[in-house]
Amino acid sequence: MSTDSNADTDADDESTSNCGSSANRGSSSAANCGGASDPNDDANESSSKCGASSSSSSPSSSTCGASSASKSESVDEKVGATADEFEADPGQLIAVGLGPGHPEGMTDRAKTALLEAEHIVGYTTYIDLIPDEITESADELYDTPMCGEVSRTEEAIDRTLAGNDVAIVGSGDPNVYALAGLALEILESKGATASMVDFEVVPGVPAAQSCGARLGAPLVNDTVSISLSDHLVPMPEIESRLHAAAKESFTIAIYNPWSRKRRDNFEKCCEILLAHRDPDTPVGIVHGAGREDERVLLTELSELEALGEDEIVDMTTTIIVGNEETYVWDDRMVTPRGYETKYDY
Amino acid sequence: MSTDSNADTDADDESTSNCGSSANRGSSSAANCGGASDPNDDANESSSKCGASSSSSSPSSSTCGASSASKSESVDEKVGATADEFEADPGQLIAVGLGPGHPEGMTDRAKTALLEAEHIVGYTTYIDLIPDEITESADELYDTPMCGEVSRTEEAIDRTLAGNDVAIVGSGDPNVYALAGLALEILESKGATASMVDFEVVPGVPAAQSCGARLGAPLVNDTVSISLSDHLVPMPEIESRLHAAAKESFTIAIYNPWSRKRRDNFEKCCEILLAHRDPDTPVGIVHGAGREDERVLLTELSELEALGEDEIVDMTTTIIVGNEETYVWDDRMVTPRGYETKYDY
Repeated sequence: MSTDSNADTDADDESTSNCGSSANRGSSSAANCGGASDPNDDANESSSKCGASSSSSSPSSSTCGASSASKSESVDEKVGATADEFEADPGQLIAVGLGPGHPEGMTDRAKTALLEAEHIVGYTTYIDLIPDEITESADELYDTPMCGEVSRTEEAIDRTLAGNDVAIVGSGDPNVYALAGLALEILESKGATASMVDFEVVPGVPAAQSCGARLGAPLVNDTVSISLSDHLVPMPEIESRLHAAAKESFTIAIYNPWSRKRRDNFEKCCEILLAHRDPDTPVGIVHGAGREDERVLLTELSELEALGEDEIVDMTTTIIVGNEETYVWDDRMVTPRGYETKYDY
Repeated sequence: MSTDSNADTDADDESTSNCGSSANRGSSSAANCGGASDPNDDANESSSKCGASSSSSSPSSSTCGASSASKSESVDEKVGATADEFEADPGQLIAVGLGPGHPEGMTDRAKTALLEAEHIVGYTTYIDLIPDEITESADELYDTPMCGEVSRTEEAIDRTLAGNDVAIVGSGDPNVYALAGLALEILESKGATASMVDFEVVPGVPAAQSCGARLGAPLVNDTVSISLSDHLVPMPEIESRLHAAAKESFTIAIYNPWSRKRRDNFEKCCEILLAHRDPDTPVGIVHGAGREDERVLLTELSELEALGEDEIVDMTTTIIVGNEETYVWDDRMVTPRGYETKYDY
């Protein structure tokens, strides 16, 4: 797939695609975890069916990429097991936000949490963002390519219930279009509790903030964040939110603006924004903020739709739409906070 | 004043109060900066007039707390000077977000930026959040108590134009109700440019994310952040934004919910939210996230207004209002992302 997952996103569009199964790259080959994958099963990566899309309707019989690839002898529990099927005392589960995607953007708390975790679980791209000295200190890494956030999260929980201290990671913040909520929902479905696994969320710098910083100061007043992915939210609802936000003087951070499967959403979004805001409203586009392929473009709202066909707009892009007072000065996007109404400077 | 400034806020309500002037606590007493304060003038702290409120209408003759307390012999430029009045080559200006308020919540990039800065400028409470090993490495600290964000920011810029590498700090993120924009606006008013001072914003974890993490996963879907301070934004505009957000299924992060000077805004906000959302809508209140006086309370929307009289709600508090799907489970606030509509788990 050409699309990557955005900071803060957990690959909204991933879940219906066929992706490879998980690869277990950890240093320990005798994992004490529920439904572990085969540490040596890399060959399976590009051919097996995505765990998420093949997940069956019964929580106790799901066959995610991870568990279907499992050959580990030490595993008693299946993915999909309920909490009372695990005999060990549960470990700790921490959802860690990595921030923008370079090690300097991580907080100390995030680093410590990852260093203390026995298992680190995440989407392959996110795991690759973690500094080697951290991943090398983990007993096990469990990563899956762009699919299966449900099975991956369940895997993290099963490993925790089996007695391991587990960190589940994502870029950005675990609360922004990310896995903190799914982890709690799956814990509940397994008859476990957040307290049982001492569940903790370690916040990270969200993509909107990383992109805002790169652009200057576009977000210093009231702001809305909206995802254009209709994988989990119906498009009419997204459209209604866009109308509401654009009518008021919110600045707007748009996540997941484009994928090959739903280019219409982006066009519709541009249309709605133009119905309420001037064509020359400043718009900042940041692709891959903080990563090697970072690209920044300042444009105007009237030009935005055409840029949907440009490589700068994909799932790793966050778009910041100014309000009626936002202006561009010296290549920076500035939304006045209102000081100029009170002070002379 | 009993109110402190919130993470991500730059003390919206501070600017009309009379506060002490600045104190210069740096190790160097011969500062090369525009309009430096007296390093030894601590006695003046609680009696002089706030720089911001006394700021005159002429940029070149303002008498902020800092400059009015100045006795430094090495200073040629006044606060209010334009860029071409400075003879030195400008230094670098970095707006640094400290995150929630404990050192572990800072990013490495923020720490490096502060360690590299010659001068660190900020509101006293924020400067106090910085680890000693960082503040001790700076040539100068310039902090002012709860007032004067305009004069403080101007001071930072003058010090930069005078040739120093300066970091201006705030908790949370510099783009969230904070000083990144004001810094650019003042740079422009002085005839300087962002490029001239190599202006950079170092993002931090915003208060909404710190509070969201503390509460569980309340913000994993589309979210609005709204400040209730009408110091810089007229209250009718804030009310209109609240209506728009509450009508749609946004989760809402409320910043600056309450101050003694404007308790009516909080009441009005609760009234608007209740006009659109059920009385039992979950609400999470986090006071002083990540600080020593942190307090967390889960409640319902119908109880919120009465809590305005409780100490938990003040300017250091962020309030997270759930959408119609948000629920509380095992003392965690969860907003479903929508996975349950696609997957069985």
